[in-house]
Amino acid sequence: MGTARPGPSVTSRALAILGAIDERHPRQTLSELSERAGLPLSTTHRLVAELVAWGALERDADGRYVVGRRLWQLGTLAPVHRGLREIAVAPMQDLYAVTHENVHLAVRSDVAALYVERIYGASSVALVSRPGAKLPLHATGVGKVLLAHAPTDVIDRVLSNLTSVTRYTITESGRMARELAAIRRLGYAGTSEEMTLGTCSVAVPIRDDAGEVVASLGLVTRTVRRDLAKFVPALNVAAAAITRGLREEAAADAFRSTE
Amino acid sequence: MGTARPGPSVTSRALAILGAIDERHPRQTLSELSERAGLPLSTTHRLVAELVAWGALERDADGRYVVGRRLWQLGTLAPVHRGLREIAVAPMQDLYAVTHENVHLAVRSDVAALYVERIYGASSVALVSRPGAKLPLHATGVGKVLLAHAPTDVIDRVLSNLTSVTRYTITESGRMARELAAIRRLGYAGTSEEMTLGTCSVAVPIRDDAGEVVASLGLVTRTVRRDLAKFVPALNVAAAAITRGLREEAAADAFRSTE
Repeated sequence: MGTARPGPSVTSRALAILGAIDERHPRQTLSELSERAGLPLSTTHRLVAELVAWGALERDADGRYVVGRRLWQLGTLAPVHRGLREIAVAPMQDLYAVTHENVHLAVRSDVAALYVERIYGASSVALVSRPGAKLPLHATGVGKVLLAHAPTDVIDRVLSNLTSVTRYTITESGRMARELAAIRRLGYAGTSEEMTLGTCSVAVPIRDDAGEVVASLGLVTRTVRRDLAKFVPALNVAAAAITRGLREEAAADAFRSTE
Repeated sequence: MGTARPGPSVTSRALAILGAIDERHPRQTLSELSERAGLPLSTTHRLVAELVAWGALERDADGRYVVGRRLWQLGTLAPVHRGLREIAVAPMQDLYAVTHENVHLAVRSDVAALYVERIYGASSVALVSRPGAKLPLHATGVGKVLLAHAPTDVIDRVLSNLTSVTRYTITESGRMARELAAIRRLGYAGTSEEMTLGTCSVAVPIRDDAGEVVASLGLVTRTVRRDLAKFVPALNVAAAAITRGLREEAAADAFRSTE
């Protein structure tokens, strides 16, 4: 480990450059990458050239660096995207065909709702969520479902930090705790302008074969909150189809591993 | 460059490990990664630990390594995914609602059709294509459109290597050259069991503001070839909506860069 440049730190420098690109900074100049990665310009230049050669980064028409096609293709192989998403898309599509509302699929990623897939059409409301985006658990329908079924320590951490997104976001921990209990009892969660003014949401849990809540399926709509419950049966039919798909995949996996 | 471990090769080793994961090998043990990356087990072990710590890789329930959530999230920021896909999804959704057939969006990636997005439902036919997948240009509807509008050197390379996928794949270069001319003249491409037995496809070009063909929009269906043309008007309406979206985005970009 006494060599001039130990391997680990070089890898972490390359990863620091990739990490400098995020949702709010999807296009970066070389000097922006250098600054955000905390690396000298010369090091950044050299590592960026390697990342471009491999296809992890590309240059756009303005010469700024963006995520490359090869990295995107590799990302599509992630199980979070592939297994659940591929099973869920057809039931989500059916739900969209019936409701014509935005249909979402999210999983919990620590204290955030990570949006895995979204189906929407020209008549659906405009949204902040998109695949790959993370939104607060306490302000979204899918997030509340995931929070209601999260381990106690996650619930505690979220309840101790209920930030306000709109003036309707629930920021009082006692009220949110009671709402989470109601979500577990009723089997669905609703929001009313808690994430975005003018939109409401309704969501149900998706369980795996063992009954664990592994994801949440939700609709975002302009419908007022008191009418949201009408969507619950349709959501539950689609959620059941996804659970069935996960069970079949688990059975196929078990079969493969005994081959 | 005389140091014991020059930086570039460490980065390329980490990238070689990521590159060992692909469509056909989405889950790998440590020794498989080591073998496919051509690296000693000890080096692989150390670099994999760093990639896991960052979130580029994860371990699945069986202990095999898979692409991690962070890498997937980063991949969703790629322009190939984000710009075109986000503009295309609503028109693709509308096309699905009308046809109930698989709707595809693909771009050319050298001599392959790279599938960027796909909309489908329970009633659509099962497919080999999925976002991130690459299929041959000469055997798919979207691929033929992209090939018909590709630079001459790309056409030459593809025509000199027309591999057979099914017994209906066009493998004779003169016939394919005539078909490409017809596609440019008629404005759409069709395939009949050339990629998968039992399915046909029809596709149209998507042009950017400058009239360049930047993508192709297609349907895959069980419909027999002679009836495929009936889908062309609907495809062209959706393609026009995508072109309009690309134009608006280009205008917004131009505005942003003068701010």
